[in-house]
Amino acid sequence: MSARQLKLGFMMHGNGTGWGDWRHPRAHPGASTDFAYYRRQAIEAEAAKFDFLFVADSVHITPKSSPHYLNRFEPLTILSALAAVTDRIGLVGTLTVSYAEPFNVARQFGSLDHISGGRAGWNVVTSWLEGSARNYSRDKHFDHATRYRLAAEHLDVVQGLWDSWEDDSLTHDKASGQFFDPARLHRLDHRGQFFQVEGPLNLSRSPQGQPVIFQAGASEDGKNFAAARSDAIFVQNDDLPSAKAYYADVKRRAAGFGRDPDDLFVLPGLRPVIGSTEEEAERKYQEFIALTSIEDALLIMARSFNEHDFSQYDLDAPFPDVGRFAENSNRSTSERVIRLAQEGNLTLRQTAQRFATPRTDFVGTPEQVADAFQRWFLEPAADGFVYNNSLPDELSVFAGTVIPILQDRGLFRREYEGTTFRDQLGLAKPENRHAARRVAAE
Amino acid sequence: MSARQLKLGFMMHGNGTGWGDWRHPRAHPGASTDFAYYRRQAIEAEAAKFDFLFVADSVHITPKSSPHYLNRFEPLTILSALAAVTDRIGLVGTLTVSYAEPFNVARQFGSLDHISGGRAGWNVVTSWLEGSARNYSRDKHFDHATRYRLAAEHLDVVQGLWDSWEDDSLTHDKASGQFFDPARLHRLDHRGQFFQVEGPLNLSRSPQGQPVIFQAGASEDGKNFAAARSDAIFVQNDDLPSAKAYYADVKRRAAGFGRDPDDLFVLPGLRPVIGSTEEEAERKYQEFIALTSIEDALLIMARSFNEHDFSQYDLDAPFPDVGRFAENSNRSTSERVIRLAQEGNLTLRQTAQRFATPRTDFVGTPEQVADAFQRWFLEPAADGFVYNNSLPDELSVFAGTVIPILQDRGLFRREYEGTTFRDQLGLAKPENRHAARRVAAE
Repeated sequence: MSARQLKLGFMMHGNGTGWGDWRHPRAHPGASTDFAYYRRQAIEAEAAKFDFLFVADSVHITPKSSPHYLNRFEPLTILSALAAVTDRIGLVGTLTVSYAEPFNVARQFGSLDHISGGRAGWNVVTSWLEGSARNYSRDKHFDHATRYRLAAEHLDVVQGLWDSWEDDSLTHDKASGQFFDPARLHRLDHRGQFFQVEGPLNLSRSPQGQPVIFQAGASEDGKNFAAARSDAIFVQNDDLPSAKAYYADVKRRAAGFGRDPDDLFVLPGLRPVIGSTEEEAERKYQEFIALTSIEDALLIMARSFNEHDFSQYDLDAPFPDVGRFAENSNRSTSERVIRLAQEGNLTLRQTAQRFATPRTDFVGTPEQVADAFQRWFLEPAADGFVYNNSLPDELSVFAGTVIPILQDRGLFRREYEGTTFRDQLGLAKPENRHAARRVAAE
Repeated sequence: MSARQLKLGFMMHGNGTGWGDWRHPRAHPGASTDFAYYRRQAIEAEAAKFDFLFVADSVHITPKSSPHYLNRFEPLTILSALAAVTDRIGLVGTLTVSYAEPFNVARQFGSLDHISGGRAGWNVVTSWLEGSARNYSRDKHFDHATRYRLAAEHLDVVQGLWDSWEDDSLTHDKASGQFFDPARLHRLDHRGQFFQVEGPLNLSRSPQGQPVIFQAGASEDGKNFAAARSDAIFVQNDDLPSAKAYYADVKRRAAGFGRDPDDLFVLPGLRPVIGSTEEEAERKYQEFIALTSIEDALLIMARSFNEHDFSQYDLDAPFPDVGRFAENSNRSTSERVIRLAQEGNLTLRQTAQRFATPRTDFVGTPEQVADAFQRWFLEPAADGFVYNNSLPDELSVFAGTVIPILQDRGLFRREYEGTTFRDQLGLAKPENRHAARRVAAE
């Protein structure tokens, strides 16, 4: 078995990540708020030994939003519920720093880590939908640079609060009446640009000490933040050359911040389409393309261009010059679209369709899909993947065909290691900062 | 069987509600963050047919805080986890309007309602601990009157967001590609004094339509808010005359707001001490008194007097004149303490001990405790109770002895009715406000 093992996450998205996926004959359109469905999928993912479940999020919708944005569980509630019906799988939830108080965030993920016996992960996002501000009594969404400064400070506060109590601070001495050792309980007294938080947290240190940090940024600020602060990066890269370049880039940045690049896991999100033959896989892929109308495909793209109205252009002319994308749109994604169109010399129609339903290396037989995973992993362009699908029965197909091949090749472990999510990732539990300081002083 | 049935909640408090409870030989001091313990207790409470679980909360601690405040689960995470391991019992969580965004609150309780199949309840509090502001980047906690204005507006927003989607708005028509009916999705466009929230919520209408609302205020503002807006009131009243007066008062207020007073449940929180004989019960009660030192008893009282330093007074002199309690202390509780001292002509020591470990009607044999429940219920001074205890095995004693007596007397049902928490309370699912408006217009 090779020493380096790939990491697998399972993206729980209920009714799918494509706009039209819910229309597939085998789709369950109400899946995104069906707890029985989430429970079944989580238990199945755990039986298949996935390292973690991943729950995405956003905080603003309009009638034009994708079906998988319109109606879905709030991440911390659904992950807590899934913690109760699973034992070993990691539980990663997205939560925006722009619209949540760090004291609440620290409690929520700290509680999840306690409830799950050390399986919590926080995907730190800054929210890129301009409309989000209007659900939170704000006139304007923060600009991109401000959001990342805020994110860094928010994370400082949350991670500081997680260290409020040293591991052995709850002495529970019934005879003397000492419930805790006051010398091992610490206020935070954070006074920053965005936040002033006294602390301590009203929750003892959790099994992982510090829940695992995910990040998904792909801009310059985002990459630096992820390389400096996160344990894992969830990234959207459909093609091997960009994935490889991205991988090298963030690993180099991590080293630049003085970190061991092996402690940072780069995990592209991918949606394999698996068939028992190449033809069947291709047919399934074409089915998905057909499910998304060209109107919807334009809307999907528009999300990354500040809701730009693409319907005004000739569909079969080259991709239009839409000028500089606005400050608060999802810059990394819009850049990717423009590059896709330019490099492939595509029309607007082709660009929209390819973007809505990407044709990746991961369409084919189980062997071919396993080959693609292996190629990306060994290149290296990835340390693992966040697998997602759109149909209720696709997880069984993937778990029953691709995972055993990866296991046979020694690329993916057959059993969980340890009990916490950090154990699965091979990351040590960080020492409490106050305990470390005291030991250093002694 | 009498038509009117009492309602029973179970307060989940881990290591107990008394400061010294964790020191009892049979106590589990780490219970408050032990999920296995919470799961066992929730399953046992459901087997005993309790109407709901209740999780309290607060958002600021100091080294002087009670052990049951220092270290505990965040309510929404633990309730979501318990939703996954129970089927019928209601799930009520405390969450402060002062430090949580209404869009987040609406999502969290809406998700819990979806996950649990319609069992969510929100105990709306405004937070009375002055220090809370310092965990949320604010200089000062809102004053009492402002907090209640804010609470009313916060609840308006949350309840409005819960009606974003009409019940039948998700059409899921695969053939036509219509995921939802846009005419049945509604923005909120709330513009108030404290909040501006556009909506709609990114979560479909939950099984209860509107999760159940609890309130716990006991001040004038609190009583009016509870009578006008809540389905149930969680109140601290240890003695029958005050409980009876309070009951009549809030029912009258509810009628004044044009409501049917029977739709408002008044539920005192009580901690029975049960023994197989009167002597055993009394001995158990004395054990609990002995667990709380006089120093701790003074600190407990101080919480309701803005952390006033009571240690400066003679313990065996009459209760001191501490002047007017400050605006932001817990006014209703401090009034209760002063009344207790004056009416009983008590010393400072006696007042603190009685307040820390109240001697109520609910200390005795199972028959005597059941008698007390019956007396309070029929008086009427209560529509039911929020039962709490401090030791891991007390729930079994209560469920095995007192509940069967209440059932034999026809005061408490033997089986759950319906599936949602509203069903247990006999409260109809409210019609969606937009659907109602359209029907009215037609």
